[in-house]
Amino acid sequence: MSVLKPKNETKTSPLDDLQVALGGDMNAVNDLIIKHMQSEVPLIPQLASYLIASGGKRIRPLLTLASTQIFNGEMSRAHALAASVEFIHTATLLHDDVVDNSEERRGKESANVVFGNEASVLVGDFLFSRAFQLMVSDGSLEVLRILSNASAIISEGEVKQLSTQNNLDTSMDDYLKVIEGKTASLFAAACEVGPVIADQNKETIKSLRDYGMALGMAFQIADDVLDYDADRQKLGKTIGDDFREGKMTAPILFALEKANDEERAFWERTLGQKDQNDSDLEKAQDLIRKHDALGEGLALAEGFGDQAIKALRSVPDSAIKDMLVTLVPFSIHREY
Amino acid sequence: MSVLKPKNETKTSPLDDLQVALGGDMNAVNDLIIKHMQSEVPLIPQLASYLIASGGKRIRPLLTLASTQIFNGEMSRAHALAASVEFIHTATLLHDDVVDNSEERRGKESANVVFGNEASVLVGDFLFSRAFQLMVSDGSLEVLRILSNASAIISEGEVKQLSTQNNLDTSMDDYLKVIEGKTASLFAAACEVGPVIADQNKETIKSLRDYGMALGMAFQIADDVLDYDADRQKLGKTIGDDFREGKMTAPILFALEKANDEERAFWERTLGQKDQNDSDLEKAQDLIRKHDALGEGLALAEGFGDQAIKALRSVPDSAIKDMLVTLVPFSIHREY
Repeated sequence: MSVLKPKNETKTSPLDDLQVALGGDMNAVNDLIIKHMQSEVPLIPQLASYLIASGGKRIRPLLTLASTQIFNGEMSRAHALAASVEFIHTATLLHDDVVDNSEERRGKESANVVFGNEASVLVGDFLFSRAFQLMVSDGSLEVLRILSNASAIISEGEVKQLSTQNNLDTSMDDYLKVIEGKTASLFAAACEVGPVIADQNKETIKSLRDYGMALGMAFQIADDVLDYDADRQKLGKTIGDDFREGKMTAPILFALEKANDEERAFWERTLGQKDQNDSDLEKAQDLIRKHDALGEGLALAEGFGDQAIKALRSVPDSAIKDMLVTLVPFSIHREY
Repeated sequence: MSVLKPKNETKTSPLDDLQVALGGDMNAVNDLIIKHMQSEVPLIPQLASYLIASGGKRIRPLLTLASTQIFNGEMSRAHALAASVEFIHTATLLHDDVVDNSEERRGKESANVVFGNEASVLVGDFLFSRAFQLMVSDGSLEVLRILSNASAIISEGEVKQLSTQNNLDTSMDDYLKVIEGKTASLFAAACEVGPVIADQNKETIKSLRDYGMALGMAFQIADDVLDYDADRQKLGKTIGDDFREGKMTAPILFALEKANDEERAFWERTLGQKDQNDSDLEKAQDLIRKHDALGEGLALAEGFGDQAIKALRSVPDSAIKDMLVTLVPFSIHREY
């Protein structure tokens, strides 16, 4: 099983490796994305391309491509479904930025700032509809079932997040449910689609789904850790968005667990009562450091990472599988 | 063909008649609506039921039920699809109210005021996903195609409306495209679903679709006329929302067509530059009255109404067909 060992020695990331291995397919997906975001109403492609052209890791469509390729499934179907998955993701980003009043996304002004909240809401709806049109063209009711379920669960996760925001009684279990909904469910669906269209058996489909779910959990926890990471700050990246928005993420929950009375009062003021001043983020980072809450967060992510790798055990070895395995530690220890 | 004559002499509205004729079916639809808006996340049913329980005419699900019943289609399938249609409609209402910054809907505070814009956006997404889950359970790819197309067209119409808002160069053609997208396309889809699940031929499916499309156009134009109607004001209903939001609707377009220089300057200030004071709505109503713009609007609606009734000609006579026919003048001349 040495082939399964994370390739920490290599310089390229497993995302790069997947991009190269599936390069032609990703080009086909990008072409479909551009084609299907067109509309007679010019504001739609303008806004959609503003966000889509700004990059992003394209990890979800890559998962759909990889999980199809690994079972020699029909790649032209995977292209359309990968585009569909990316449209669902893009729609949720547009709506998230409105909900969070975000000002920045991927290092530039967010679409809601440039085009307004109204347009972001409506173009999100448009892309969401386009995602379903693409699935309908593919014609698999099973795929439609998987992705419509994922979409419902995403919005449930987002609403739950809204309910836990600024709420210091949020439990670790609440948090895990939020991220399972808002992030992991689409990772799971993106991975499940591949073996479904490649006509694999139930166990195999479940393996890929479990992989995607656990990877998504690890990915989101790592994301939440990065939002307090001073090293990332040194790279010129924005941090502290979650703190400002009062999101009850892993670093906060671990720091809260060990908080003394004075610290609890700090969290109560800054998160519970939304009363923050300029030095509070630094203070929050100090407390997080004091209690090793980022370390605890990464350990939690690694637990899910282990589950992800285990889920792939029954899948026959291949170069793509190798990349999916190495994607796990990369997702946890990435710097962006 | 005397059966086709609008029953103007009756006291009950054709909507009431449809509600009675399809009463058991509407109860089944309402049960499904309540069942499928449930979620582990309490805010979702709270917000959804706030809007859904507030009534509304339920005209779209009634159209799906009627257009199935008329061809003796399977009503249990119609129930699920009617609920799906109503979920799509409810999702767009939630998003519309956010986009328009509305404060009132159906005579009470709108959901965005009570629960916040964030929750309205996300619960809208949830209901939209639920709509697709219901369609997937039904299992007809053709229905999924019809309703995913309608959804995409609705958001295109809404974005186009955003682009024409406060824009005095908006043409009648632009306006018709906006309302075809935002309203008529879902009426058309709601009517098309019935003959599709009742296995009718292409011509029949097209007849019902054409009926729904033309009815939707007439319905929306009448809605836009009502928003300036002084008689409605006397009933204690809010008017002038469209004026305040700078929506370029039929009454404005007809008044603009005949505006002299001074009047044009008035529209330019109040709509183009969004500079409105307390007496401007009354002035706008005066100009609209002067040029009989509401009458012109109703005439435009009646043209579509005629198309709607014509589209039903080839459909065999029945009590339900009679109600669909009388629904046309009712939709144009209603007071609410």
